[in-house]
Amino acid sequence: MMNHSPYMPTDPFLVSYYDCLPNFHTGDDSPRAFLERCLKKIESREDEVRAFTALDIEGAREAADRATLRYGEGRVLSLVDGMPIGVKDVIDTADLPTQMGSPLFREWRPRFDAASVSALRQAGAVILGKTVTTEFAAVVPGPTRNPFDQNRTPGGSSSGSAAAVGIGMIPAGLGTQVIGSITRPASYCGCYGYKPTVGAVNRGGSLDYMSQSTQGVLAASLDDAWAVIYAISARVGGDPGFPGLYGGEDPGPESGPARLIRLDTAGWDRVDENTRGVFDDALDRLRSAGVEIIGRRDNRLIETYEETIAEGLDISRSINTWEFHWPLLTFEDRIPGHLSDIMEGRLEAAGAMTPADYRTWIAKRDQARDLHRELAAIADGFITLGATGAAPVGLDSTGDPAFSLPASYIGCPAVTVPCLSVDGMPLGIQVIGFADEDEGLFSQARWIEGLLLHRR
Amino acid sequence: MMNHSPYMPTDPFLVSYYDCLPNFHTGDDSPRAFLERCLKKIESREDEVRAFTALDIEGAREAADRATLRYGEGRVLSLVDGMPIGVKDVIDTADLPTQMGSPLFREWRPRFDAASVSALRQAGAVILGKTVTTEFAAVVPGPTRNPFDQNRTPGGSSSGSAAAVGIGMIPAGLGTQVIGSITRPASYCGCYGYKPTVGAVNRGGSLDYMSQSTQGVLAASLDDAWAVIYAISARVGGDPGFPGLYGGEDPGPESGPARLIRLDTAGWDRVDENTRGVFDDALDRLRSAGVEIIGRRDNRLIETYEETIAEGLDISRSINTWEFHWPLLTFEDRIPGHLSDIMEGRLEAAGAMTPADYRTWIAKRDQARDLHRELAAIADGFITLGATGAAPVGLDSTGDPAFSLPASYIGCPAVTVPCLSVDGMPLGIQVIGFADEDEGLFSQARWIEGLLLHRR
Repeated sequence: MMNHSPYMPTDPFLVSYYDCLPNFHTGDDSPRAFLERCLKKIESREDEVRAFTALDIEGAREAADRATLRYGEGRVLSLVDGMPIGVKDVIDTADLPTQMGSPLFREWRPRFDAASVSALRQAGAVILGKTVTTEFAAVVPGPTRNPFDQNRTPGGSSSGSAAAVGIGMIPAGLGTQVIGSITRPASYCGCYGYKPTVGAVNRGGSLDYMSQSTQGVLAASLDDAWAVIYAISARVGGDPGFPGLYGGEDPGPESGPARLIRLDTAGWDRVDENTRGVFDDALDRLRSAGVEIIGRRDNRLIETYEETIAEGLDISRSINTWEFHWPLLTFEDRIPGHLSDIMEGRLEAAGAMTPADYRTWIAKRDQARDLHRELAAIADGFITLGATGAAPVGLDSTGDPAFSLPASYIGCPAVTVPCLSVDGMPLGIQVIGFADEDEGLFSQARWIEGLLLHRR
Repeated sequence: MMNHSPYMPTDPFLVSYYDCLPNFHTGDDSPRAFLERCLKKIESREDEVRAFTALDIEGAREAADRATLRYGEGRVLSLVDGMPIGVKDVIDTADLPTQMGSPLFREWRPRFDAASVSALRQAGAVILGKTVTTEFAAVVPGPTRNPFDQNRTPGGSSSGSAAAVGIGMIPAGLGTQVIGSITRPASYCGCYGYKPTVGAVNRGGSLDYMSQSTQGVLAASLDDAWAVIYAISARVGGDPGFPGLYGGEDPGPESGPARLIRLDTAGWDRVDENTRGVFDDALDRLRSAGVEIIGRRDNRLIETYEETIAEGLDISRSINTWEFHWPLLTFEDRIPGHLSDIMEGRLEAAGAMTPADYRTWIAKRDQARDLHRELAAIADGFITLGATGAAPVGLDSTGDPAFSLPASYIGCPAVTVPCLSVDGMPLGIQVIGFADEDEGLFSQARWIEGLLLHRR
């Protein structure tokens, strides 16, 4: 049952903060007025969408007023100064509860902010609220519904950020992705999803101890997405030991790719005809605009790569299970009985694993990453869908992560652009780049977005 | 002023748990009886040494009784089952306060255990207490005094673990080392210090966000040291993405090195004549036993390496400062006025750094690590002192970290063996190995220990 008229990617659901910056400078608009528009949308839709676990409306108004003052006085701190941001509820916030999608952390309040939150506050951003996550950013869903059909999942694990941004409650929400948690919900909810290169964003102070996880953002535009991630990385860097985000405050102009690899990964057998048709049309438009699209039949190296990442989902799950041994061990030891059956199963599975098993898996992942790097000699990037179709009906599962997995497994950056639709629901195009070349990926995504959204 | 008779490395201060295992099996001794001996030593010396920030004597007695029962029933969990362990106070413990050496965390109690503590509990170990750390494991000292001269520093930052183990209060204490925090205090306090390969031990749940930091152990013997680190890594692995500790439950038999590089790093100009003499005597004994000792004059690659690590201290400090931006940012933002002047200075310095600066430093560190690996073709390992001399008089500084720095900067494993003395105080020999070859390093250290302690 549709609750709203069919989604069209050109409908103005998304609320970009970046686009309003000129009017903040002239005084025709203000961060406080922007916030009030967000609050109005939240008031009208939150009861049904359930994107937030907590809101700090008074604190947000005060912060937005301070930003408005800075705009008036020409003391603007950054491109995100005054931007209302939602924070996935596995990321610590000192002003708001951080409940990890788990009864184990009900009403839990950290004393300090996570690295990203701390950096965003320094940059003047307004931490408006916490957004729903699955249990520990894994698979057990929270209460969020898809804003375009409340019988469908918003995707996960960054469910609340995707739904809130998709329907225009906020211009940006922090997310994390270890398998499918940013680009998939972005596709389902019709917003932009940016999963940076692994290690590019400091994850300190979040419940996120997995080696292929990355903190990223669900956003109303590419500019909003970049502004948020840049603001964090410029202030607190990437994960310790990683070079952090490469690129300037502005990711640079659009640039059309000469050649893209169409990923033919696991999951395509589950894509329906309508969805295939929509994707093929998009590829045709790219071809018409001069982009060469190649695939596994065109090049032996691509075929080898596809075969290598076919085992990526199983290996990723094994890696995650071992890396989750702690903290699950202490969760169950200190405050027993609060894990989902799925997490209890993982704890048990991890107990049967050894460091030698883990080494085998990360060695295989390293091999896949090496292969991925080799493909830079062949193409400018990769193109696929953000998910295997529109958000599926039902709230018990967050959907199929197959198309998000490759970028997670490889640790390379990926962007989902909300420029397609199927069955009256959003569908994203996903562009995948090469590690540490997030800036170049944005230039390509910007060009592809312009083409597919008929902006040129 | 000496408070005790001069220290001799053959004096039986250290209390090895590993050595008692046979008697636990026969029933001639028990984990509970071992604990009581520890408690007696603590009772007699703690007022003066001040190694602990908290003790859980009743909890420890219960845990030791359970271990005693397991020994009686032949259900022993691991080599550390029943071992009383001190935990450096930057590592979370759910049963005991975790105060980080800072007023910011006074009486702070985490809800969960850190990865290492959780693993040790699973292995049956007895978490007896928390040991004094400098502020956030950096430079501002805690109250601990050197157990062999209370006017001297125990070294830092793992001050309490080193002092407690050195004087025989416990057989092992967890430590962390980012520049000089395990091998230096081990040398000053006359205990074994083991800093594993970077990433080999899971640091989850500790206030330790630095890329060259490693969790390790201060211990009463090489066997105790290995047993503790193995028990952790076998259960919760290394840091996410790292292969974890290589090697079995038993690190294998002693094995004499054929050729060692005598490190002639920065700091030797501050070593006094007595200390040089003691070290030269030790080298002569190694030579007499057939070990070839080479140095920078013998090989151009060694000279290049020495020059490269000469800048390691400055680069390490810069890296640490950037990596400390968060959490210092949120500490000062959320609960202002609780940082030391030194930490306030670091926060300010970090604010002036950029991700591009950081990239330059970690690239230089990577170069040094590559050079280090190349030296494996030339020698079996490296030999130097654990510190630039005996623990210096005064409690305002934790001493000179120059000789601990190379292994921290390189990320390779190092062991300090308490087999020398100078000025009536302990002095350790430090053996440094190659990354991920901790097991081989132990075999060498065991052989060197046997030689220098006149066991053969």
